[in-house]
Amino acid sequence: MNRRILLNCDMGESFGVWQMGDDALAMPLIDQANLACGFHAADPLTMQRTVALAMRYGVRIGAHPSYPDLAGFGRRHLSCSPEEVTALVLYQLGALEAFCRAAGTQLAYVKPHGALYNDLVRDDALFAAVLEACVTYRKGLPLMVLALADNRRELELADTADVPLIFEAFADRAYLADGQLAPRRLAGAIHHEPQRILDQAMAIAHGEPFADIDGKPLQLIADSLCVHGDNPESLAVLRRLRAQLDAL
Amino acid sequence: MNRRILLNCDMGESFGVWQMGDDALAMPLIDQANLACGFHAADPLTMQRTVALAMRYGVRIGAHPSYPDLAGFGRRHLSCSPEEVTALVLYQLGALEAFCRAAGTQLAYVKPHGALYNDLVRDDALFAAVLEACVTYRKGLPLMVLALADNRRELELADTADVPLIFEAFADRAYLADGQLAPRRLAGAIHHEPQRILDQAMAIAHGEPFADIDGKPLQLIADSLCVHGDNPESLAVLRRLRAQLDAL
Amino acid sequence: MNRRILLNCDMGESFGVWQMGDDALAMPLIDQANLACGFHAADPLTMQRTVALAMRYGVRIGAHPSYPDLAGFGRRHLSCSPEEVTALVLYQLGALEAFCRAAGTQLAYVKPHGALYNDLVRDDALFAAVLEACVTYRKGLPLMVLALADNRRELELADTADVPLIFEAFADRAYLADGQLAPRRLAGAIHHEPQRILDQAMAIAHGEPFADIDGKPLQLIADSLCVHGDNPESLAVLRRLRAQLDAL
Amino acid sequence: MNRRILLNCDMGESFGVWQMGDDALAMPLIDQANLACGFHAADPLTMQRTVALAMRYGVRIGAHPSYPDLAGFGRRHLSCSPEEVTALVLYQLGALEAFCRAAGTQLAYVKPHGALYNDLVRDDALFAAVLEACVTYRKGLPLMVLALADNRRELELADTADVPLIFEAFADRAYLADGQLAPRRLAGAIHHEPQRILDQAMAIAHGEPFADIDGKPLQLIADSLCVHGDNPESLAVLRRLRAQLDAL
Repeated sequence: MNRRILLNCDMGESFGVWQMGDDALAMPLIDQANLACGFHAADPLTMQRTVALAMRYGVRIGAHPSYPDLAGFGRRHLSCSPEEVTALVLYQLGALEAFCRAAGTQLAYVKPHGALYNDLVRDDALFAAVLEACVTYRKGLPLMVLALADNRRELELADTADVPLIFEAFADRAYLADGQLAPRRLAGAIHHEPQRILDQAMAIAHGEPFADIDGKPLQLIADSLCVHGDNPESLAVLRRLRAQLDAL
Repeated sequence: MNRRILLNCDMGESFGVWQMGDDALAMPLIDQANLACGFHAADPLTMQRTVALAMRYGVRIGAHPSYPDLAGFGRRHLSCSPEEVTALVLYQLGALEAFCRAAGTQLAYVKPHGALYNDLVRDDALFAAVLEACVTYRKGLPLMVLALADNRRELELADTADVPLIFEAFADRAYLADGQLAPRRLAGAIHHEPQRILDQAMAIAHGEPFADIDGKPLQLIADSLCVHGDNPESLAVLRRLRAQLDAL
Repeated sequence: MNRRILLNCDMGESFGVWQMGDDALAMPLIDQANLACGFHAADPLTMQRTVALAMRYGVRIGAHPSYPDLAGFGRRHLSCSPEEVTALVLYQLGALEAFCRAAGTQLAYVKPHGALYNDLVRDDALFAAVLEACVTYRKGLPLMVLALADNRRELELADTADVPLIFEAFADRAYLADGQLAPRRLAGAIHHEPQRILDQAMAIAHGEPFADIDGKPLQLIADSLCVHGDNPESLAVLRRLRAQLDAL
Repeated sequence: MNRRILLNCDMGESFGVWQMGDDALAMPLIDQANLACGFHAADPLTMQRTVALAMRYGVRIGAHPSYPDLAGFGRRHLSCSPEEVTALVLYQLGALEAFCRAAGTQLAYVKPHGALYNDLVRDDALFAAVLEACVTYRKGLPLMVLALADNRRELELADTADVPLIFEAFADRAYLADGQLAPRRLAGAIHHEPQRILDQAMAIAHGEPFADIDGKPLQLIADSLCVHGDNPESLAVLRRLRAQLDAL
């Protein structure tokens, strides 16, 4: 691996009086912050403050657009048409970038959130709708998607739309053989042991195979690892991971 | 008058299945379209389509940001702090401009909507908060405000913030002596007779005095007239006004 | 047929400044008004006024609960859990009945709206969740569902939950052989000719067979016909239908 | 004092994934739970679960209606008309009582939240609008308001509307001479020392005078003390207060 793997983390997911996590603790440890845009979390002031926090640590700001569903945190599928999806992603990109502009920076990438992220795996029309939002918003703006054992579908769709892709992988999730995330309802779908998480992270960082949910070797080529920092356990793992990557 | 007066109109105020007016009829007749940004009206698709409609007729696109109040159409005062107002205006500017970007244009100005517009008259801190949103979003982006008999307060605040102002006047509203709009509850506050509206419009266009609500002469220096096109009567007046201005 | 068929109509679907249809015209012609509860349409004042209008004409008031989706008018599927559906239906039943209480009446039945209505056809768990809301809200409160060629599934689920059912049919929609509504994307899915609508209505009123979308005879046993009154054409048909039913 | 003073506490103020406090810790210690109704906090499932929790401990359930403002937690004034206020309070009473009905109980009282609560002090028309909601919802349903040095205004308005009042006082807030709460921006407006809070609580419980913000004696006749249990400090005070009141 010549290219250093980056760490991305969902941020700015407080809403009004309700706090989620403590972004100030994780922000210094990551490279890319996926910022909520007001549809699943965040209000305008939260967005403004989280942009300022990201800039303080030189963290790249990505938009984290969602279906409009505050009560469900964007985790519920909403059957929108592709043209609705293009429009609601554009709306959120612009809303977040307003705070970037005011702070003297701009969006670095787009990572769909929750149910919208999951729906892209299965639905070419929705995938194309999100790509359309990215490329019409700014040519060259990359879309972050799930690294799979075989990403030819995503690369083909993105190539047609002329949108660069960023591939992300997960260190704390078990994988199916094809590189899809094992559904959360399956036993063993989430890794809780810190060493297991770190080992999977470093394997991915080195582009080496690691065990999928059935123990079979899986190799993923990823640009970024999705990490969490919203509780003391995940923060502790994140600190160790940051140190290991910095030591490479 | 060397400078031609422009016509501005609130547009894009449908929401989901609910239609308001028929923007396609008024758009060819105006110069500046104040587009709702999703807080008092409009959904992402409506915004995208209204931007396209404005571009078809070469109409300049202004953001029409509001307090967050769909149920009250932004007409109810919401006691936000100045920093909340800056953030919610920034959010809406960016959201609307995303559709402008995707269509190859950009925002031409900002005109606050409803209760937010009215609150600016009385509250210097809110006025400064909106100016802050404009200038941090894009240096040179103008704010549209009410033309008064004496606009020194507005000019001073805007000069401090380095924001250009656009002054607008109303042809179908009666005025108090100082150039404030006569409150709607007063008898005679709204002009209904087409000729009266046209006469006041042309007086303002020529920078000539016209009668305030007490019959005393009032002179306003305005860059733009706020017009309506959401019913057959207002459309008919708008067509005559457009023709009279084009004949100047 | 000993029992007279009733006419039900969606009502109270304005929201804030946005009007939908003119409930005052259709209300005198119907027996049951399905009132929006604020999740897909209606605000508290609209609900209060529509309850008053229904009472003026002795029309029974039904709750018309929806997924929370004002921007999509409740027509988009939202993947809620059964317990979320029970809770959101309960919420809406209570909210609407508050206005009934204040006006001296109570809810007569529940008819789910839009995507929620459609989802019940396929999803036993969601159907059971809505039944649970009905029976825990008030024992004996009926649920209105689609009359099919064979309603054994619905009767069995409702019997288990101890909820009475009201079966409704449509005069202006084409049917599949099993009594499901023909999807709107199919040619001929919507009847537009008034006589065709009236003939299908009267066939259903008499419990007689009528032609499905393939021209084959279909017989539905229904308690109520869903009618529309939101435009001059549908109102004209509704007036003729009311007269024909009154003449039986 | 023959009548024991009660303890009331705001509860059910989580929203979706966002938790606020831990209602399970405070619920066993209080007599009356003011439950959010979805306008400033709470979603339907949160309301259902909080009703169940209150019933487990025999705590009376009060509705805690608010202006519609999730992002501002109902703390921002929204200039609603009196008829809008009546309608939005009715809506929320019904919505919450649906969960009470489903659980076999009913609303015991109404306590407006945040900005709406504060607005009642100054605005007779809004006060009358809330009273109208209470009495039309259920005759005898009490409204909880602020105990003042002189509550004749409130008693007169409530008497006209035929609504019983419950007077509440605060142990952790400093008071102005007339019994209004000292504004939070004043130094000393909030008591932080546990003993000071307990002393003020016991003085109010005994109907004895205590020091207002200027050190002058103030006597309040109150039925209930508003307490907090959303952090370890307030919970510790609440436990001591509960013990002291139980020992009376």
